[in-house]
Amino acid sequence: MSGRKLTIGLFGFGVVGEGIYNVLQQASSLQATIKKICIKHPGKKRAADPNLFTTDAEALLNDPGINLIVELIDDADDAFIIVSTALRNGKDVVSANKKMIAEHLPDLLALQAEHGTSLLYEASVCGSIPIIRNLEEYYDNDLLDSITGIVNGSTNFILTKMAEDGLAYKDALLQAQQLGFAESNPTLDVDGYDALNKLTILLAHTYGVAARPTSLLFKGISQLHPTDATYAATRGYKIKLAAQVRRMGRGQVAAQVLPQFVKPDSQLFGVRNEYNGVIIESHLADQQFLYGKGAGRYPTSSAVLSDIAALRYQYKYEYRKLHSPEKYSVTQDYYLNVYVSFNNWSEVSKWDFESIDEFHSTQERQYLAGTIHVEKLMRADWFQSPAVSLIVMPDGLVRKDAIALKSIKKISLQLGGIFE
Amino acid sequence: MSGRKLTIGLFGFGVVGEGIYNVLQQASSLQATIKKICIKHPGKKRAADPNLFTTDAEALLNDPGINLIVELIDDADDAFIIVSTALRNGKDVVSANKKMIAEHLPDLLALQAEHGTSLLYEASVCGSIPIIRNLEEYYDNDLLDSITGIVNGSTNFILTKMAEDGLAYKDALLQAQQLGFAESNPTLDVDGYDALNKLTILLAHTYGVAARPTSLLFKGISQLHPTDATYAATRGYKIKLAAQVRRMGRGQVAAQVLPQFVKPDSQLFGVRNEYNGVIIESHLADQQFLYGKGAGRYPTSSAVLSDIAALRYQYKYEYRKLHSPEKYSVTQDYYLNVYVSFNNWSEVSKWDFESIDEFHSTQERQYLAGTIHVEKLMRADWFQSPAVSLIVMPDGLVRKDAIALKSIKKISLQLGGIFE
Repeated sequence: MSGRKLTIGLFGFGVVGEGIYNVLQQASSLQATIKKICIKHPGKKRAADPNLFTTDAEALLNDPGINLIVELIDDADDAFIIVSTALRNGKDVVSANKKMIAEHLPDLLALQAEHGTSLLYEASVCGSIPIIRNLEEYYDNDLLDSITGIVNGSTNFILTKMAEDGLAYKDALLQAQQLGFAESNPTLDVDGYDALNKLTILLAHTYGVAARPTSLLFKGISQLHPTDATYAATRGYKIKLAAQVRRMGRGQVAAQVLPQFVKPDSQLFGVRNEYNGVIIESHLADQQFLYGKGAGRYPTSSAVLSDIAALRYQYKYEYRKLHSPEKYSVTQDYYLNVYVSFNNWSEVSKWDFESIDEFHSTQERQYLAGTIHVEKLMRADWFQSPAVSLIVMPDGLVRKDAIALKSIKKISLQLGGIFE
Repeated sequence: MSGRKLTIGLFGFGVVGEGIYNVLQQASSLQATIKKICIKHPGKKRAADPNLFTTDAEALLNDPGINLIVELIDDADDAFIIVSTALRNGKDVVSANKKMIAEHLPDLLALQAEHGTSLLYEASVCGSIPIIRNLEEYYDNDLLDSITGIVNGSTNFILTKMAEDGLAYKDALLQAQQLGFAESNPTLDVDGYDALNKLTILLAHTYGVAARPTSLLFKGISQLHPTDATYAATRGYKIKLAAQVRRMGRGQVAAQVLPQFVKPDSQLFGVRNEYNGVIIESHLADQQFLYGKGAGRYPTSSAVLSDIAALRYQYKYEYRKLHSPEKYSVTQDYYLNVYVSFNNWSEVSKWDFESIDEFHSTQERQYLAGTIHVEKLMRADWFQSPAVSLIVMPDGLVRKDAIALKSIKKISLQLGGIFE
């Protein structure tokens, strides 16, 4: 078997780092050995040769004998310093740090190009599911229509418990925390930031757009109300937090992370608990679906290992869409069919909607179903309010040219009386 | 964008060939042009420049200006002559001909190695689902446990209609033929040969075994009886034709194509109609699932196109398992938990079973559920009888060392009376 010999400098010895260490001890066919491991707290007892450990990052980054840095630490800022230094020093890098990658994508692209080094990060999106590799290698022929995924296991676990066991959001979150599927500070997950980082990475590999994560449309699940669950249940829907990239016309893509109603005929309907799943739509292949564990020790280790294996053959992402003559940019010039629930009308401006198709009011909660322009939605004060819940309807993305066909009815007469 | 320029000699101009021709006209980024198209019947009217067509295969195979042969003809024997000549002449090849590939794998491997040429055939297994590429690139780290797939769309369409619309096998087959999901001569599909060819290809890419297809354990679906459908329905199972490769111990793999009961918790349960789906189990990634269209004009074109795109970068399958120090071979030394239905006991030898756990008899049909050793099953006259139906139980593969734990009870006393 061919392939070059890899000598690894490992940053971080948490569950994934230790997993990689153990597997590399066994998987001799990979021809990869760990030369040094950089850790933060030297005092801890660790199940590996003590001579491997150091707290001196430079000892790894400046060692010419090390040709691969595997970065598995939590802190995104420290991670960026490590990764960018390594790339500059001519070392290839494997990282699982989605926050770092999403926030520094343009810099990381430039560093790879300048120094001819390769940065792989399959573990950063959907854990063990080889979504980035497939987008790079297999869906690179200009025919991609959309990609829609459940990319955050914590929120999917919570949403599954809410739907299947009738738990309120708070109780479902607590259970997720107890079982280790959510952090003690769950904000990054439940408010959508983690999914947003993954969306940003997918956007680069689907349409070659390197966007700032927080410039994109997103909302998490922490504001979901029991009324929303009832609405979903009576219609046979499930609520999922969906990350979506969709071509909306020549050179334009929609990119969003939003709660979404999913019907039973969607492959996402059956993605339960901590699992992830991604639907890829293309002109030729029609609909494809990739499914697996999105996080956790072994799934993450699996993706990191596959990246290490690929680097034996000097594999690098080509980012072909980024260098393609047809450039894409993110558009907010499209419409969404949405369900919105709230406590009273003072919280939501009805005039933001192009049309309202359904309205329901009880003492407990009010909701409407209607169509809204995305620019208007992103500017609306109420959109990010924790008292307001917004869920995209199934097939809720509407291209601008399609909306003209719909008769646009500003707040219909029958409903008028209630609103004033 | 980099990558070499491809000049293609195309064999066959059926629906896929024409699709590829059309897409290449549009997808300029692929830098691939078709120089000549070899067809059998020059008289037919075709939607392409008439100067492209020839009936002279040598004109393509001996043209030094052509560096890639795309082979899309039906006949497996002709296809092998074309493909082997092309590889010998220093040309890379893309083929979708699963029968040809499965039957000639050792030769095709040798030709590639000897002449340094590359043969890609993603379209041959599960159409648009990038299963071979993922096995090659992503699951190459010795940690694969099993792969189980619905790899034949025709039979899955028939089984779906039988389960969902209560159709008898014959009527479901007729409907599949009317809708173009089954050939007028359906033998290759319904008797399992097509799935068997795909299994053979998967076996090479999962465990590096190049086996003769017909040496493997297989049975199709044409013998299924309404009683079987009832048995499945009352237990909440579906019947699927499953191709399966599973590690059974050091250096040993089971490989089989058999009808199988599937429970709702399996991802295969939801694979309906003409779709395909593959579950990949590995130590680290746990269970992964790939789903999409397995056949037809566009899905096949999609896979062929991706192979063409990969050849710009001189991609070739590494068949790493084939060259790995740990060699695998196919074993028949394991047990299966099966359901078997038949018209009367003269058709099935009860003594072939290690144990029989359930037995049911009506005037119409009899069935049993029991455990049988695979060597015994493959030697049994009744196994391939069209009057006998055999369906593997969910999780029905049992390793030899596991069976010892089960108390082996030859035909139990209570049932004895009925048998004699």
